[in-house]
Amino acid sequence: MDKLVAAEAWTRADLLGLEHLSAEEITLILDTAEQLKTMTGGCAGKLDLLRGATIANLFFENSTRTRTSFSLAARRLGADTIDFSSSGSSLSKGETFIDTAKNIEAMNVDAIVVRHRTPGTPHLLAQNVECCVVNAGDGAHEHPTQGLLDIMTIREQRGQIEGLTVALVGDIAHSRTARSNIWGLQKLGAHVIVCGPSTLVSRHWEKLGVEVAYSLDAILPRCDVLNLLRIQFERQLMRPFPSVREYALLYAMNGERMTRAKKNILIMAPGPINRGAEITPEVADGPHSVILHQVTNGLAIRMAVLWLTYCAANTGASQ
Amino acid sequence: MDKLVAAEAWTRADLLGLEHLSAEEITLILDTAEQLKTMTGGCAGKLDLLRGATIANLFFENSTRTRTSFSLAARRLGADTIDFSSSGSSLSKGETFIDTAKNIEAMNVDAIVVRHRTPGTPHLLAQNVECCVVNAGDGAHEHPTQGLLDIMTIREQRGQIEGLTVALVGDIAHSRTARSNIWGLQKLGAHVIVCGPSTLVSRHWEKLGVEVAYSLDAILPRCDVLNLLRIQFERQLMRPFPSVREYALLYAMNGERMTRAKKNILIMAPGPINRGAEITPEVADGPHSVILHQVTNGLAIRMAVLWLTYCAANTGASQ
Amino acid sequence: MDKLVAAEAWTRADLLGLEHLSAEEITLILDTAEQLKTMTGGCAGKLDLLRGATIANLFFENSTRTRTSFSLAARRLGADTIDFSSSGSSLSKGETFIDTAKNIEAMNVDAIVVRHRTPGTPHLLAQNVECCVVNAGDGAHEHPTQGLLDIMTIREQRGQIEGLTVALVGDIAHSRTARSNIWGLQKLGAHVIVCGPSTLVSRHWEKLGVEVAYSLDAILPRCDVLNLLRIQFERQLMRPFPSVREYALLYAMNGERMTRAKKNILIMAPGPINRGAEITPEVADGPHSVILHQVTNGLAIRMAVLWLTYCAANTGASQ
Repeated sequence: MDKLVAAEAWTRADLLGLEHLSAEEITLILDTAEQLKTMTGGCAGKLDLLRGATIANLFFENSTRTRTSFSLAARRLGADTIDFSSSGSSLSKGETFIDTAKNIEAMNVDAIVVRHRTPGTPHLLAQNVECCVVNAGDGAHEHPTQGLLDIMTIREQRGQIEGLTVALVGDIAHSRTARSNIWGLQKLGAHVIVCGPSTLVSRHWEKLGVEVAYSLDAILPRCDVLNLLRIQFERQLMRPFPSVREYALLYAMNGERMTRAKKNILIMAPGPINRGAEITPEVADGPHSVILHQVTNGLAIRMAVLWLTYCAANTGASQ
Repeated sequence: MDKLVAAEAWTRADLLGLEHLSAEEITLILDTAEQLKTMTGGCAGKLDLLRGATIANLFFENSTRTRTSFSLAARRLGADTIDFSSSGSSLSKGETFIDTAKNIEAMNVDAIVVRHRTPGTPHLLAQNVECCVVNAGDGAHEHPTQGLLDIMTIREQRGQIEGLTVALVGDIAHSRTARSNIWGLQKLGAHVIVCGPSTLVSRHWEKLGVEVAYSLDAILPRCDVLNLLRIQFERQLMRPFPSVREYALLYAMNGERMTRAKKNILIMAPGPINRGAEITPEVADGPHSVILHQVTNGLAIRMAVLWLTYCAANTGASQ
Repeated sequence: MDKLVAAEAWTRADLLGLEHLSAEEITLILDTAEQLKTMTGGCAGKLDLLRGATIANLFFENSTRTRTSFSLAARRLGADTIDFSSSGSSLSKGETFIDTAKNIEAMNVDAIVVRHRTPGTPHLLAQNVECCVVNAGDGAHEHPTQGLLDIMTIREQRGQIEGLTVALVGDIAHSRTARSNIWGLQKLGAHVIVCGPSTLVSRHWEKLGVEVAYSLDAILPRCDVLNLLRIQFERQLMRPFPSVREYALLYAMNGERMTRAKKNILIMAPGPINRGAEITPEVADGPHSVILHQVTNGLAIRMAVLWLTYCAANTGASQ
């Protein structure tokens, strides 16, 4: 447990995104997550690091998966958790978002994990409460713990991020996961490609320093990692492509395309996956897929983030 | 706590139904449940047997009662619990049921307690995940912990099952509780009668080895136990009888019928009961009713099942 | 922890309202709450007083706030909590309310915290179950823990209640908070004024011993405390005043009115507040506002009530 002392090097009481973190800070989170994963026997056991603390999930978009991952991460560090959702909350009684958050804080909550459809909501929250704030997804802006768990999974498999070519494939326009991955991966030295139909991938992304590609087949031989983003059917008012078959023909990762990929390519997906859309079952369940490792690492990253922000908040240091 | 060592005699990592259990296995669960009930002061106190474990409730049908019973059973053994429901889950985002379950498992869950309207879902799940699977009701097929808690309550009151005549009365056709009771009771030597209107009780049930009856009054004098199944109004597209009054006239257990029953008859009901339909208040609240004992024993049975499957999964033995 | 021995002076296994408590009993709850607040470092830390106990929230009206406050209070005393709500519960399957409660009790629950739209529901419940019953709001009748947390906050700020003039402003007719405050405050020697439009405040309230006023401006200079009740838009079939602007003009606490109030006036609100309706932001966020203190004290009061009733139930004493 000695190296967890490194928590002293972390000074932020909030995790709002990866855009403004340094490479050293990202590496510190990854290192802490790896240690916690080891200390808990692969994220299965419990520790007492946050015993007595309370973590509140304040989710204004449905998310069983991310919410549960944060809850389990908190409880495996010994913390208590409470859930707030938009339905049935005081917001429906006319209360402002900040008043709701301040009320939660007044119940002596140590951290608020927030998901909201409006970009910047976690930042607004962090300016108005004393407790820790962790962004669990704000609109199409950032989803930092998803970015971190993706990066952790790559590093775990490959030893390092520097020099790797990572392609994010699919619905880049609507993806907070894409943005968090781009910022995090580039800081650690990866070459990032965003790839998808032109309706979902704009040339403007080049301003973030990434390569923009419209043909998966063209970039495939160069990729060390493919991160296959979900086609978020439920979020799109206009269909950005004629049909799922059309999309799959050009962008789905399937057995045939695997034969043209690098021998040790990693296949990732943030899930929930649409089998037959962005990925075929033989690839999702194949030996290159690390999709379920991502889920397990999500616990490790969230344990690390809750622990580091808690330590920063309780030693007086704050961002 | 010495006799709990008997857990070593149990080898199944899943509890999918009573149909394929031996009499010895059923008795082992009952014995373990009785011990745990004693050790927890009547299912009230807490033990540390499952400390550090996580039990996931994956319920695709509404059930406050069964879900809560499993949650309390898990927590009274020291385990942590998480709840998943169909609404708001990833299934609504196009994910397959098995992918949802594998994601839950990847969060290092020790057991999944599953309820689903499709018969066989727990079996499909057990083939696809490594963790324990406990059936909390699959369509009209089985509800093994309900069957076990009914049998435990009878044994607790009468000392043994062998030689008793147990009638299941009412909506047999739609009842997973009936099936689990039939298989369990017969293996332990009881004579089982299924009784109800012909629209709800078919002659085909005789193939399971039970007696089929259409008149409660005719069988009443022979019965040691009556298990009054709920009329599941919410499940029936066609009304199988003209009216509740009509049903009650023929099948409700009431004070008048009690005078023609055995002196020590046991009155059971899986609940929630419809007072005035299958049972009148004077019987439900009378001295022969063990309905609330069933609820308490539900905790004991679920503690036993979670404990036994956990032990089997963690010693390498698996069904 | 020596003074908590005073719990022996408390003999009620239920808290149904403040109407029938003595001044000594109310003071005992307040003293216990203050001690627990100190012992938990301001309601933030955990104690083991209720370790092994289970508290059930049985809420038939939406309430994230009160339910969460009870849950956190229970858990900070080491108890386990389970939530029942009306949707998805057995009530929708035709079960009676009392049967639902008896089933919950049969799972060995130590206390049921109940909210229901029908006045008297907690009293009915207490007559039918052995476990503790705590009223978390019954229709427009009582909300005793809200009354207690309001009184605790006043006492904390002013040292005593006796001799203070406390005005409850707004929707008195629909307010259980008003009734609990009136009974509690008067027993401790405060002078209570109820103030609002005549559509929401009837002369009949004088029978409870309070002063009835229709002009906030007329009573303002005399008030030591203003408790600004929510305009419960969601509860009113008829609009009792022409518009929110009209209401705010006469009854909202704003910066201008603050200049005519006592220098040390306390501004309270049970929340969730409607900014711009009963209170303006400058007052809600100003130095006289103790709104968030009320939230924190809610935890202390609920810890005290759960602890005292539990002790009474487990020493054989009962109301």
